[in-house]
Amino acid sequence: MEQGTLAELEARVRRLEDQSAITRLIMTYGPAADAGLTSLAGQLWLEDGSYDWDANGTPCHGSADVDSMLQSNGHQNLIAAGIGHFAGPLLIDLDGDSAIAVNYSLIMRRDGGRFYLWRVSAVRWDLSRVDSGWRVRRRTNRLLDETGAGRELFGGTLAEVFGEAAK
Amino acid sequence: MEQGTLAELEARVRRLEDQSAITRLIMTYGPAADAGLTSLAGQLWLEDGSYDWDANGTPCHGSADVDSMLQSNGHQNLIAAGIGHFAGPLLIDLDGDSAIAVNYSLIMRRDGGRFYLWRVSAVRWDLSRVDSGWRVRRRTNRLLDETGAGRELFGGTLAEVFGEAAK
Amino acid sequence: MEQGTLAELEARVRRLEDQSAITRLIMTYGPAADAGLTSLAGQLWLEDGSYDWDANGTPCHGSADVDSMLQSNGHQNLIAAGIGHFAGPLLIDLDGDSAIAVNYSLIMRRDGGRFYLWRVSAVRWDLSRVDSGWRVRRRTNRLLDETGAGRELFGGTLAEVFGEAAK
Repeated sequence: MEQGTLAELEARVRRLEDQSAITRLIMTYGPAADAGLTSLAGQLWLEDGSYDWDANGTPCHGSADVDSMLQSNGHQNLIAAGIGHFAGPLLIDLDGDSAIAVNYSLIMRRDGGRFYLWRVSAVRWDLSRVDSGWRVRRRTNRLLDETGAGRELFGGTLAEVFGEAAK
Repeated sequence: MEQGTLAELEARVRRLEDQSAITRLIMTYGPAADAGLTSLAGQLWLEDGSYDWDANGTPCHGSADVDSMLQSNGHQNLIAAGIGHFAGPLLIDLDGDSAIAVNYSLIMRRDGGRFYLWRVSAVRWDLSRVDSGWRVRRRTNRLLDETGAGRELFGGTLAEVFGEAAK
Repeated sequence: MEQGTLAELEARVRRLEDQSAITRLIMTYGPAADAGLTSLAGQLWLEDGSYDWDANGTPCHGSADVDSMLQSNGHQNLIAAGIGHFAGPLLIDLDGDSAIAVNYSLIMRRDGGRFYLWRVSAVRWDLSRVDSGWRVRRRTNRLLDETGAGRELFGGTLAEVFGEAAK
């Protein structure tokens, strides 16, 4: 087993803590969005971060804009009817004070007394470490449907993370 | 990079281990429930823990009661027909020997040869560290449906975890 | 709080890193399969690893065979129509240079403009640490349907992981 100094070990622990903090950040979004805690959800983003939530949608620019989007009648009607903004486990790629995370987003709604899968998306998270901790610099969602948008997002992101191995 | 003594670093590692142990505990429930390993599932709870599984249900009191519920004809019929008690990734908030975890529960059943989403719930886990490790002190499930019960559970729990930031 | 030497602490950090590396390995499969990055997906397996993907299917033998399966018309047609190979959070059981992981696999497809749950499976991963890191030695999927195959896979695996506690 490789050993080292306390400083070397501390750097390894720091990487694990970064992964834990990023997981906590991302896993806060869904429950906050479902509960209508719009300010908490917005604060997950950098002030000048962005949320590109669909190939055919208008991205949110900045944490205040994410907050506003979640305060809109559209979102408020969704949560009144019952909805789950589920986020899957993360593939995290750390690079110092930046990170990329990849996961699936499943949004579930009600129809005739049953839940159904409304949107199934590929998600790429670009994250930055700032003084207050990790924040979302950019989130991109693309549907895993016949348009190929989700497939393309996953493909491009894995190519960036894995380089030659993804060829 | 901040440094410190071996004892300080050990405390940071301990926190990461706690998160890992809590994840392992919670991720055991679904497979144990699906497989009918009722005793294993019950042992995840404290002897005097509780499982408040629905707004309109009668909570289980104690690990033996969770075990009994899973031995009931109701549950045994569900697993004979095929069922998946899926648990999503955790938002964990550690506080010494206690912790709160938040996630989604999706229960999937069969209907006419297809799987469908039977129950989609907000879940709050209250956990305690005892001599034998982490155990469930209380689990609360609420449907993310038009009743607003799931929304309320997520909202109240995030308010407790994030304080002012969740206002 | 128990303390120890730097070497003891390093061994604990190593275990957490192993869990992180295994999570990264497994969470790469779905996005790679959905994006058609067949070589990347295949490389997650040992050269002589196996992928037993269904009780009634022919297992893939070796990483090259996983790559070939994903290049087949069958899989390519699935991804052209839109599909999500979602993997749930892991229950990990480390044992030196080997590990077992348990989770759920949900495969979602499109039908008439809506997503639906095509396959819901119990999954057991047998993993090995080799020079290049952790790799899949064997992956086994079994549907959580009325055949009881998924139930049996979860039951047998938990019995192996938890021993007497799973009786």
